[in-house]
Amino acid sequence: MKRNLPVRPDRIESDIDALAAITEPDRPWTRRAFSPLYLEGRDYLARRFREAGLEVRIDAAGNLIGRRPGKAGKGTIMLGSHSDTVPAGGRFDGIAGVVAALEVARALDEAGIVLDHDLEIVDFLAEEVSIFGVSCIGSRGMTGARPSDWLERQADGMTLADGIRGVGGDPVGTSGRADIAAFLELHIEQGPVLETERIDIGVVTAIAGITRIEIRLDGRADHAGTTPMGARRDALAAAARIVHGIEDVAAALARGPSHFVATVGEFSIEPNAANVVPSHARLLIDARAEDPAVMLEFRDAIAELCATVCDRAGVALASLRTISDNPATPMAARCVALLEAAAADVGATTRRMVSGAGHDAAFLARVAPAAMVFIRCTGGRSHAPEEWADIDDIALGVATLYNAVILIDRQPARDIADNTDNIR
Amino acid sequence: MKRNLPVRPDRIESDIDALAAITEPDRPWTRRAFSPLYLEGRDYLARRFREAGLEVRIDAAGNLIGRRPGKAGKGTIMLGSHSDTVPAGGRFDGIAGVVAALEVARALDEAGIVLDHDLEIVDFLAEEVSIFGVSCIGSRGMTGARPSDWLERQADGMTLADGIRGVGGDPVGTSGRADIAAFLELHIEQGPVLETERIDIGVVTAIAGITRIEIRLDGRADHAGTTPMGARRDALAAAARIVHGIEDVAAALARGPSHFVATVGEFSIEPNAANVVPSHARLLIDARAEDPAVMLEFRDAIAELCATVCDRAGVALASLRTISDNPATPMAARCVALLEAAAADVGATTRRMVSGAGHDAAFLARVAPAAMVFIRCTGGRSHAPEEWADIDDIALGVATLYNAVILIDRQPARDIADNTDNIR
Repeated sequence: MKRNLPVRPDRIESDIDALAAITEPDRPWTRRAFSPLYLEGRDYLARRFREAGLEVRIDAAGNLIGRRPGKAGKGTIMLGSHSDTVPAGGRFDGIAGVVAALEVARALDEAGIVLDHDLEIVDFLAEEVSIFGVSCIGSRGMTGARPSDWLERQADGMTLADGIRGVGGDPVGTSGRADIAAFLELHIEQGPVLETERIDIGVVTAIAGITRIEIRLDGRADHAGTTPMGARRDALAAAARIVHGIEDVAAALARGPSHFVATVGEFSIEPNAANVVPSHARLLIDARAEDPAVMLEFRDAIAELCATVCDRAGVALASLRTISDNPATPMAARCVALLEAAAADVGATTRRMVSGAGHDAAFLARVAPAAMVFIRCTGGRSHAPEEWADIDDIALGVATLYNAVILIDRQPARDIADNTDNIR
Repeated sequence: MKRNLPVRPDRIESDIDALAAITEPDRPWTRRAFSPLYLEGRDYLARRFREAGLEVRIDAAGNLIGRRPGKAGKGTIMLGSHSDTVPAGGRFDGIAGVVAALEVARALDEAGIVLDHDLEIVDFLAEEVSIFGVSCIGSRGMTGARPSDWLERQADGMTLADGIRGVGGDPVGTSGRADIAAFLELHIEQGPVLETERIDIGVVTAIAGITRIEIRLDGRADHAGTTPMGARRDALAAAARIVHGIEDVAAALARGPSHFVATVGEFSIEPNAANVVPSHARLLIDARAEDPAVMLEFRDAIAELCATVCDRAGVALASLRTISDNPATPMAARCVALLEAAAADVGATTRRMVSGAGHDAAFLARVAPAAMVFIRCTGGRSHAPEEWADIDDIALGVATLYNAVILIDRQPARDIADNTDNIR
C-alpha cells in the first residue's frame, strides 16, 4: 500500500524508534513515568518539538506541551497521547499518538498552513497505572479531575507531589483549561477488530465505562479425603460456577447492539493446599460497557448469579462490592464525523467502534469536544513487547489526523461542539 | 453416657492433656516431628510407657516402642499411631491412638491378663507431612517402604538421615518386621460421618487410594477492555468450567457403592491482573477412591472433560499429568470382624467405613493383617486447633481396642490373616 500522504512515514518511524531505544535494556520496552528514562524520553521529545518550531513548556499538571500559535485566536486544537509505558510494554501504545501529533505540526509547517486555532501537541503525564497506583495523572490534572488526596500517595520514597515537581510541574498550581476547541488522540486499537475486519481506521464513538466488582466467598476448610462430596462448603467449586456464569452473561450481553466485555482477571483461593477443601475465594470482575443500562443489567445478573450459586453450594457470599464505577464517555459527534471525512480524504476505510480501554481522551472529553483515531495493531497485542503497528497503518492514521485538524480549524466553535454528526 | 468400661477415661484424658501442653505456645497445637518439643513429647510418652511396665526402645526407623512380652511366643500384636502434629493442628489426631494403645497395655495389667502374643505400643515417627516434605516416615521405615533417596532430603540445615539419628534411630539400619501378627490403630475420623449418623465407632475396611492430577492450561493474555468476548482464549474461564465439571463427575461417582471424593485444592492463574485476560491456569486435583476401577473411571472422565472444554475455549491443554497414584489399601477382613465383635461387647454401635485420609496403618498393612478404629470428632474438624473428640467417645474406642486385642490373641495366626470376616 503506497499512498501520496501529506505526512512523512520515515520521520514518524524514526521518532518511534528513537523513543523505543530509551528503555530499560533488560526489560524492553519499559519507560515508566517519573523514572530517569522517562525524563530522557521527554528530553528527546522536547528537542524534537523545538526543532519543529513549537514553543515548549511543562504545565502545572506535569504535561509536556509544544505550542504552534494560530492566527485568529480561536482557541486551541489539542493533539496528544502519552510517552510512558507499562513494565515490559510496547513501542506504540501512547507513543504513536505523541509522535503523530508532532508529525501533524511538522506537516502543517511544510504545507505552509497557518491555522486559525493555536495547535498544541501534548505528552500527557503518566497515562498508564504508575508507581503511585493511579493512571491518567496528567490528563486528570489538566481537566481538574485529579483527586486532591492523590498528591500524598507514596512510592519509591516520594509523594506524587514530589513526582510532579520532578517532571517540572507544580502540584499546587492549576492547569484548568477553557480554551480547548477540540481534542484528538491517535492510538493503537489494542484489540483485534480492525485487523480481523481488514479496516484501516477505527473512529471511536465512546470510551467504555469501567466497573470493577469484587466477590468474596466464605466456605469451610475440610479434609479433602474424609469429607463426603455432599457435606462440603467448597469456596472454589462455587467460585468456578460463578466464573462460568459471568462468562455466559457477558457473552449474551456482548451479542447486543452496544459494546460490552467482562473479565475475571484476578482470582485466588485459600488455603490453596492440595488436601484441603478451599475455604475462601476472591474474584475481581472488570466489566466495560458503552451503555450504562447494559452495565446495570450485568450487575443485576451477577448479583442473582452469586446468590443462586452460593445458596446451592452452602457457601456464604461474604462480599459483592463495586469497588470502582466509571461511566462511559461519549466522543463528540461532530469530531467523529470530521474524522470520518478526513479518513475518506486519504482513501482510508473506517468503522466506528467503542474503546474498551481507557485513554487520556476520556478526561479531555470533560472540558472539550474530543474524539479518537484507532490504528491497527498486529494480533490485537498490546502491553507486551511484541506490540506492533505497521508504519503504513500509522501514517494513514496521522494523515487522517492532519486532515481532521484542517477541517476542524475551519468550523465555527459552536459547530465543533454540536452534538450531531451532520457536517455536510 | 456412662458405661462400665475395662479402660480408664481419666487416665486417657490426662495423657492427652499432658501432650497437648507440649506445644509451641503461640501456635497451639503444634508439635512438629524432629523438633525439640517433639522430643519432649516423646520423653513424656517413654516415661509413661515405663511406668506401665513396658520395655522401651527406639527402632532403627525412629519409632518409639513400648513392649509387653507375651507368654507363648506367638508374635506381636501391635497398636499405635503418631504423636507429631501439623502446624496449628489438633490434640487428638494421632495422639489419641498412641494414648489408646498405652491405656490398653495398662488395662491388661490391671486385669491381670498376660497375652500369648507380645504386645507393642508404637509412636510412629513423623506421620504428618514433615519438614522434609514427606509423611509416614516411621511406618514406611518399619515396613521397608521408605525410599532410600529420602535420607538425603534436606530441611532446617539437616538431612532426613540426621533427623532420624536425632530421634535415636539408625537411618542405615533395617527395621523390617516379620513378627507382627496384627496391627490395630485407633484414630479420630477427621470427617463428619459418625457424628452425622450418630454412630459410636467406625470400623475401617480400607484406606482410600490417593491420586493427584495436575492440569495446566495455556490461553492468551489479552487486554480485558479491548478483546471481544468471542476473540478470547481465557485460561481461567476454561479452568472454571473444568472445576465445575470435576465437581459434577466426583458427585456422580460418590453416589456409587464405594467411597470416592475429589477436590481441587490448589488453583492459580497468571498474570492475575485486573485488566488482563488470564493466560495460564493450574489446577491440582486430589482424588481418593476405595475401588481402583472407580479411580480409572474418574481419570478417563477428567481427560475427556479437559479435552472438550479446552477445544471449545480455544485454550491449550498444556499438561494433564498424574503426579502421584497410590492404590487403596484394604484392611484385613478378619481384623475388621473382630473389631466389630469387640465393639459390640462394650455396647458400641458401629459402621464400616473407608478412610479417606492416609494413616500409618496403610503401611503396616503391607506386612501384617491391619485394621483401624475410628472415633467421632466434633463437626468432622481436624488439622485445626478446634479439633475435638469427647473423652467418652475415645474411651469407647479404647475399650473396643482392648477387647479386640484379647480376641485376636486367642485366634490362631492363620485365622487372623484369613481374608474372610467369618469369625463365628
